Order: sequence, then C-alpha cells, then structure tokens
Amino acid sequence: MNDIDIESLKGIANQLRIHSIAATTAAGSGHPTSCCSAADVVAALFFGHMRFDPKDPRYHNNDRLLFSKGHAAPLLYAAWAEAGLFPVEDLLKLRKLDSDLEGHPTPRLPFVDVATGSLGQGLSVGVGMALCARLDGLDFRTYVLLGDGECAEGSVWEAAALAGHYQLNNLIAVVDVNRLGQSEATALGHDLVTYRKRFEAFGWRTEEIDGHDLDEMLEVLAAVGLGKQPLVILARTLKGGGVSFLQDKEGWHGKALSAEEAAKAIAELQPSSKTGIGHPIEAPTRLPAPKTDGPAAYLPVAYKLGDLVATREAFGTALLRLGQTDPRIVALDADTKNSTYSDKFFKRFSDRSFECFIAEQNMVGVATGFAARGKVPFASTFACFLTRAFDQIRVAGLSMSNLKLAGSHVGVSIGEDGGSQMGLEDLAMMRSVVGSVVLYPSDAVSAEKLVEQMALHKGICYLRTSRPKTAVLYNNDELFPVGGAKVLRQAAGDKVTIVAAGVTLFEALKAAETLKAEGLGVTVIDAYSIKPLARQVILAAAQKTNNLVITVEDHYAEGGLGDAVAGELSSEGVRVHKLAVREIPHSGKPEELLARYGIDAQAIVAKAKALAA
Amino acid sequence: MNDIDIESLKGIANQLRIHSIAATTAAGSGHPTSCCSAADVVAALFFGHMRFDPKDPRYHNNDRLLFSKGHAAPLLYAAWAEAGLFPVEDLLKLRKLDSDLEGHPTPRLPFVDVATGSLGQGLSVGVGMALCARLDGLDFRTYVLLGDGECAEGSVWEAAALAGHYQLNNLIAVVDVNRLGQSEATALGHDLVTYRKRFEAFGWRTEEIDGHDLDEMLEVLAAVGLGKQPLVILARTLKGGGVSFLQDKEGWHGKALSAEEAAKAIAELQPSSKTGIGHPIEAPTRLPAPKTDGPAAYLPVAYKLGDLVATREAFGTALLRLGQTDPRIVALDADTKNSTYSDKFFKRFSDRSFECFIAEQNMVGVATGFAARGKVPFASTFACFLTRAFDQIRVAGLSMSNLKLAGSHVGVSIGEDGGSQMGLEDLAMMRSVVGSVVLYPSDAVSAEKLVEQMALHKGICYLRTSRPKTAVLYNNDELFPVGGAKVLRQAAGDKVTIVAAGVTLFEALKAAETLKAEGLGVTVIDAYSIKPLARQVILAAAQKTNNLVITVEDHYAEGGLGDAVAGELSSEGVRVHKLAVREIPHSGKPEELLARYGIDAQAIVAKAKALAA
Repeated sequence: MNDIDIESLKGIANQLRIHSIAATTAAGSGHPTSCCSAADVVAALFFGHMRFDPKDPRYHNNDRLLFSKGHAAPLLYAAWAEAGLFPVEDLLKLRKLDSDLEGHPTPRLPFVDVATGSLGQGLSVGVGMALCARLDGLDFRTYVLLGDGECAEGSVWEAAALAGHYQLNNLIAVVDVNRLGQSEATALGHDLVTYRKRFEAFGWRTEEIDGHDLDEMLEVLAAVGLGKQPLVILARTLKGGGVSFLQDKEGWHGKALSAEEAAKAIAELQPSSKTGIGHPIEAPTRLPAPKTDGPAAYLPVAYKLGDLVATREAFGTALLRLGQTDPRIVALDADTKNSTYSDKFFKRFSDRSFECFIAEQNMVGVATGFAARGKVPFASTFACFLTRAFDQIRVAGLSMSNLKLAGSHVGVSIGEDGGSQMGLEDLAMMRSVVGSVVLYPSDAVSAEKLVEQMALHKGICYLRTSRPKTAVLYNNDELFPVGGAKVLRQAAGDKVTIVAAGVTLFEALKAAETLKAEGLGVTVIDAYSIKPLARQVILAAAQKTNNLVITVEDHYAEGGLGDAVAGELSSEGVRVHKLAVREIPHSGKPEELLARYGIDAQAIVAKAKALAA
Repeated sequence: MNDIDIESLKGIANQLRIHSIAATTAAGSGHPTSCCSAADVVAALFFGHMRFDPKDPRYHNNDRLLFSKGHAAPLLYAAWAEAGLFPVEDLLKLRKLDSDLEGHPTPRLPFVDVATGSLGQGLSVGVGMALCARLDGLDFRTYVLLGDGECAEGSVWEAAALAGHYQLNNLIAVVDVNRLGQSEATALGHDLVTYRKRFEAFGWRTEEIDGHDLDEMLEVLAAVGLGKQPLVILARTLKGGGVSFLQDKEGWHGKALSAEEAAKAIAELQPSSKTGIGHPIEAPTRLPAPKTDGPAAYLPVAYKLGDLVATREAFGTALLRLGQTDPRIVALDADTKNSTYSDKFFKRFSDRSFECFIAEQNMVGVATGFAARGKVPFASTFACFLTRAFDQIRVAGLSMSNLKLAGSHVGVSIGEDGGSQMGLEDLAMMRSVVGSVVLYPSDAVSAEKLVEQMALHKGICYLRTSRPKTAVLYNNDELFPVGGAKVLRQAAGDKVTIVAAGVTLFEALKAAETLKAEGLGVTVIDAYSIKPLARQVILAAAQKTNNLVITVEDHYAEGGLGDAVAGELSSEGVRVHKLAVREIPHSGKPEELLARYGIDAQAIVAKAKALAA
C-alpha cells in the first residue's frame, strides 16, 4: 500500500475539476458544477482508497465505482484518464458521436458496468453487485456515488432497505449533498441530520463529512468494512465547489461554461504540482474468477401430452432444473414466489435466491447488478407489477444487460382478482425495450424450453406466463428457438391464419375445430416468440390464406401481438385483424372474461367467418 | 357528535370480519385474513371517528378512506354495507362479473376514489387529496390504510417525504402491521420501532398501538389534526386476527376458507348484540363545492408562421394561458420545470403548483389524487422518466382518472445527453394504457391547442413534446380535435403517403420537397393524435397512393406511431413501412442522430424512392 499524499490528492481533485469543465465547455453542454461538487470525494475514492487494476477495468475482483448521479460522467471519465486507461486528450471528445465518452455513462466503456443517468437506480445495482461479491467469495467492494436530489427517488430507499436487511458491509454509498437540484434547492438542502436519520432507520451505518475535506474523507474510508452494516458517507458539498463564481449558486445546473468562464474557473483551480499519485493506491486481491459460461447441457424435461400444467409453474420447474447444472443462475422475487413458482428454486438453492420483498424497481436493479457481474439473474413477479420497474428495465436495455424477467398472471384470464392484478400491457412494455427478446409460451414444454433459451441468450429476455393450467401441446424433444413459431394447424384451402399465444392459442385451436366442422379451414400458429417475431413463418402461412390474419391476445390492443404482427407484415400486404382487450376489465371467471372481451373461441369463429365470407 | 360505545364497535368489527370471511368463501377466492387484521382499525375509523355522509359517498367534503392495501376490499365493502349504502346481502356477490364488488376496489363503486391493488400507491393519492383539501379550503381528512408489506415499496417513502415536506396534518396513514406477507414474513415483522424511526425521519408524527385494541385506536384518533405533521398510526395486528386457527399463522395469505372453515371461524366471532352504531359518528361540515367545470373559453394563442418555438415551451405557455381562466388546473413537476417549461405556470400560480422533487411515481399518484377531487392536474417531466411511473399510470387508467401527463425531451433529437435521457418508448407505454389519449404535436400552435384538448377531455391524456425548436406550421385559429390529423401535402398522382409527427414531420416535409424536385409526389400527414388515430384520414390518403405508407418516428420501432398505423390499417390492405430507431442510441448532435438512426429526410427520400420504383 502506498502512502497517501493529501496535497497531491487535492491537486488531482482539481485536475478532475479542470478536465470536467474543459470537456463540457468543449462539448457545449453538460454538468460541470455537478462534477465539481463530487471531485474531492471521487479523488479520495479513486486515488486514495479503492483497490483496482487501472489497466484492466473489467477485472472481476476490482472494487466497483458506480456513478448513480450519471450526469457527473465527465468526472468519472477524467478519473479513468488520469489513472492512465486512455489519453486525457480524449476527454475533449465528450458527447461526440465518434467517442464513447457519452453525456451519461454507458457500458460501451469498459469501466462502466451499467448505464446511469436516470437517477435513483445506482444503489439497487450496487446492492446486486455486493450480494454477488458475497456469493462468489470475492472481496471487492462496491461504491455508489449518489446525488442528494436523487435521494427523493423511492428506489433509493428500496435499495437501502434491502442492503440493510442483507447487512451488506461491502457496499458503500457516498451522497454528494450539494443542496441544489436542477430547478430549485432540494427538499432537504444541507440538512445532513435528516439524511442520517433516514439511512439509520433503513439499517445503515452513517458518517457525515465535509465533502471538500480530504482528510475527513480518508479517515472515514479507513473504516470501510467495519461492522455488519452498509455504510453511507454523507458528504456536505457545494455545487460547483472549488470555483468561486459557481459554488453554491443557483442557475448553474446542467450548463457548460463559455470559453471565457471556463478559463476563469480553471485559473482558480490549482492542479497538483507533483505527479505520481495518478494511480490507485492498492491493487485488487487476485482471486479465482467465477464461472460465467453456461453448462454443457441442461437436464431433460418430462411432460405428458395433454397434462394440465400452468406455464407459470413450468417456469418454476425450469428454473429449478436449470439451476442444477448452471451455477450462474440466481433467482429474485418480490414476495410472490409462491405464485410465480420461483419458490421451487428458492427452496433448493437458497444461497442463490434473493427475496426482494414488495419492491420491484429495486429487484430489477439488483438483478441488473448480478448480470453485470456475470450471473444470469431471473427476476419474477406478476407481469403487471413489472410495469413498476419500467425505467429500470429501459435502462437495463441501454446497459445491454443480461437480465431475465418473468411476469406471471397475465391478462383477463387471471379472473376474479380484477384489473389491478392483470398484466395487459406487459408485451407493449417489453417489446419497446431496445434489444429485448419477448417470449410467450402456451404450454409447459415450450415454457421450459424458453427458459433455457433465456439462460443461453445474451441480453434482456422476458417470459410471459399465465395463471390457468393449460394442456401440454408439445413433445419433450421439441425445440423452441428464439424467433421461431409453430404452425399447429394448416391444410390446403385454409381461408384465414390465426396467430395466438398463451391462453388464446387454446381458444384458437377450439375455434379451428368448430370452423372445420362447418367447412371453414383455418391455419393456427403459436407465436411463442413475440420479439423477434417469426416473420417468415407467419408471412408464408398468411400468403396461403389470401393474406388474411387474425391475431388474438390476452393483452390490450396496443403494442402487443397484434401490433407486432401488423407492424412486421403489413408492409408485405398482410391484413391483420386484431382481437384483444379494449376496455377496463372486470372481475369474473376466466372463461367469462375471455368471452366478455372478445378473445375466446366464439369471437375467433365469428371473426373468421366474417373475413371468409 | 354521538357517543362511542366500545362494545358495539367491537361487535361491528367482528361483523366486518364475518362479512369478509363469508364473502370470500362464497367467491372461492380472496384475502379474508388480510381483512381480519384491519377490521378493528377500520371499524374505529369508519364508525367511531370519520366524518362523512353514508348516503352520499361522493360528497366533496366527506373524509376519504383509501384502502392502499386493496386486497382487503371485502372489509371496505362490508363497512359501506353496514353503513347502509347497499344491502349487506350484496356482499355475497363479491368478485362476480355482474357485481362491482370486484376483487380489488375500483371507482366503478361510488365510494372508491381510485383503483387500488397494486401495492404502495395509495399514500401518494392520499397526498394529492390532502393537498387538494387545503387548496379548496375544505376540512375533510384523508385516511390511507396501508399494509406493512407494501411499505417496502419506494413509492410509499416518496409519498411520505412529500407529505412531510408539505406538512399535511390532514393526512393520516394507518399501517396494518400484521407481520406476514404473501410468501413469507415481511422484512421487519412486528418491529414497530423501525417503522416509527422511518416515518419520523420522513417528517411524520407517529403513534404505535395494538391494532386490536379499540380504546387505544380511538384515543389516538382523538388527536388527529394536532400539530403540523402528517400522522401515521402503526397498528400491531395479527393476520387473521380474531380467529384462533387463522391468526398469526403462515400459509393463509390470499386464501378463501372452505365452507366448514368459514363456519368455524364465524362461530368464534361475536357480532354486536346491539344495533344503532352502524353509521358514522359525525357528519361532514357542509361547505361550498369547488368548481369542477371547465371555463367558457380559453385565451387565444398568438404565434407567427415560421417562428421557431419548441413544443415543450409551447406546453408551458399553454399551461399558463389555460390557468388564467381555468381554476381546475394544477401543475406538478419532478424537478425539471425549467426544462419542461411548467415553470411558467409555477411562477404565476404558485398556490396551484406542486414541486414533487425527483420522485415520478409519487408525482403521478399525487396528480391522480388531485384528479379524484375534481382538479385537472398536469404532471410533467422528461418523457423517459414517466416510465418510472408506469404502474401508477396503468392503475390511473383502471381508475378512469382525469390525469394529464406531459413528457418532454423525446427521442434521439435531444442529442448530446444520450440514451438515458431520451424518451423512446413513451408512445408504446402510453398507447397501452386503457382509455388513454396520446397526442404528439409538431409545432407550437398544435401543442397549445392540444393542451386545451387535454384540459377539456375527461380521461388520461399524454402530450409528447420535443426538445428542439421547430417552425410554427399552423395558423392560430387552426383546430386540433382529439382523433384528428392534418394532411399537409397532397396532390394527384402522389405515390406514397408519409405519416409523421414531431421532429420527423419536418424531415418528411423536407423529403417531400426533395422528392417533388425529382418528380416523385408524396402525401405528408401530421398524425398529431397517435391515439385515437385519425384512421379515416390516413386510410383515405393511403388509398390514393396505392396503399403505400411510410411512418417515421423518433421512437423505437415497437409500439409507437408505426405500429399504431399498421395495427389500425393493415386490415384495410394498407402497407406500412416503418422508419424508427432500432438500436441503442448514442450521444451526438440531433441532426447527426436523426441521420444515424435512419429517421431523417434522406432516409425518407431513400425509402420513398425504393417503394415507388
């Protein structure tokens, strides 16, 4: 361990400020004052405390530093440049199309684990990483830099509660309490006492410091890891700190300085006269890397055709089955594990199972943290409650995260519990996530196989499962590749193609029987892969039925299966007629509701007849 | 004020338990044990404390009671039945299609203000109602019954923080701390001390009681309204409380009792031997009702064709303009008001403006609370951050809420800030909300007129505004009805119809000029109403261009404008070719990004030529 030279650290902090100001001025936009407030704490962390390999930012046992206040990105970039990862001159390419030094951090950069910039998300990711370190027997620590403004986000308190619950003493939050938000002062200003009470009430050890006093910061950091609780360092800072005409002044949020202002600011800032402290003070412990490859094979499935098994239950069975040969898999749930059936995994693999309680935003953030450390996290709850975490899911898309989500209890087919428990917009949500895969099995075999596909696919995947029991349709050796579909009924002379998935597939099959008896042939397709859609399979079938397609889905009419098929195939001249839920659903029996909202066999029969007429 | 007879109240509480058990047993599903834990506190509130007119549940100065723990709906229904609003026999219709006594409460019932059942949302709504009471000079109080499990939701702490900030002493939360969640015990169990510390740290007065001791409850209620802080009553209860074989036992969440079990439970419960306390103890103060009708007219707009004005700024100007003649309008923002331009309203109408800080879930919940009391709340932030509140928005849809949302900074055209700040899935989200109206203006005049439409329309409306300045396209007297579209370029012999909105409309107009110069005529449509879509206008135009349509949108390819047009019109044989963002966006200049992601004039020109070839 090297000695810490406080004067040099102060110089480094000012150098980080200078870079941040120069880069944002060059870009013509950005948040220099939000960098300046945190420059001292980041200098202390990065060059006076953290253990990492500055040449290998992805090393698995490096301490992690998450900028939850992602708008201070230039400060993070400056620290890595000063540590020698890339030339400091590159910092002036900030926010340009040909540089990955973007306006907010993204994992296009090797030293960024997850995209940040939507405030209040970083601490959840940090909780996931800290849990993962413990699971993997690694001693890296996770540091999360938060702004004070973002502490208004409930997700911060969800994360704080879970960190306290799991006693994550390898997790350290630093709150840059600079008092000023974007449009006005924060609700708490410099009231550090209230921040302290809040964190203490959520199970944290707290330290209050002057965030511009490096001695105080290093003293507090020296005690990191002591005790059982996570630690929060509440740093009283000044926005624009270090520059006389910026600091603690309103009206400077998210504004780059003019060239003249920048020159004036930089002239005030004394960079280090020495060199040589521009590297981390300590190297990471060299420890074996956890396994990040999938297994050679998963155990087989064993269902009997016609058996009645809910796809949600098959999800749980698959999770348990995969877990037996794939140590990368971890499970998270939000107090619904006995309904989503993730409890099958929880019971067998308690060390890899994490109850997140009723806090879906944090659950998704924690899962994203696990994914960022090489795990394959499956987070499950009712599909409707995943809407709670849409922002986290959206940002996980930007992070190219290997996140797996499973939403159960979709559609009106849940029945009596009523609208608040029905996932009727989850397909719209998950389709709109960049790079996502959206899967919707109808029977137990396809559900199991699609869970395998999720574990093997790199990227965000969503599995939509249903509450009711449905008949096993497929043989155990059937394959369900991502982007595929199954043509279940097809004959020469078919007049209409019906595309369905989940409970409505069984309605489509019933309708096909009825129509066949009446002399009207229809093709039936199981569109288990909603995104990517099996464009060619559906198009080929449609073309054989005069381009007439009916989609039927237990989902609202917008953004789901019908829009997916129409959006992909209308350009080819396919005519898509959507059957979907179009009003506020009521409580009732599942079969009553399918009929009431026009997505049952009878509705399909009527529509097919009308089209074929 | 009537005397309170504790023995009668105890009997009433047991009567509520009996109804809850009998109704869920009759339904075959539901949450009887979650009703039993809260039966005493609800009996005390409803029949021993609250001031309301049991024959007129919508009376504007009634005390409000929100069941944030919506799964205890049978208890709420039983209370209103016992108060005489409807026959107690109706309680046995619970969860049936022909009864509005649904599995979770919805505003189909006259005594339910907002749908609940997605946990953790009620307190935010309560904050909105309490703020509204203060604004309207009414003395009604808002009571919110929460479960302990849902206190893990961050939205509860967002609401708690804001209630503390605004010192809402007319807001009373009661937490039914029954220790048991759905799948296991809650993280805090019966640790009331920690709940107390948390609420105190968020600015609340706290009282701890035995939730089955009516004397304690009434004593605490007698001091409601004292002091400046909101009050939380932490009630230590037993799940299934009052029934020996249910209470404090695991495994009974969300399970109806069998007929035998129900009979056994009911035999243990002593209903009141007296009658006569089955009514509220006090009537509401009779006070004038606030205005809930819109104004005769709004002030006119005054723009000059060709002037450069961002639609986000026009939104702010419109809000200010409407506010001058429409006292129903209130504004909420999440610390972005200087970017969304809602600050124009905030500065002029500070009494009707509510800074919600960086906590979008709560902001939407608070707005829903205002809407439930007759106001027209406009909640604004960056479009991407509204994804944070998708669950609240979804449930507002079920509530038929008169909520107005404005999302700014959409798409890659925001430029340098990068993906985390770009709203690229907001159309997909808002289209999927049941009953929603989704509007997307391109210029200042249409933006202003659409804000008017939002204020006049009853129901959830979303306005999508852009960051860049765009030219004024329309005259000040142009009308923009919901469900309309404007055909901006059209001539005989046009080969393709281009449908656009927002910044891409200007790219389409540029493309049309280029193509015209090259001899290729195209029709250009401003689809400012994304939902409902101007189906007939677009269809008629498409049919004149050989059914060839190009949609171009600054949004991901899924669930937005392209899917909307294809989903509506593919059934008519219209061929929709979508231009949209299809990868993770990068930081850069707006015009660079429109080009990079294939949604600029050049991309439209290329596509149109390919189609017309």
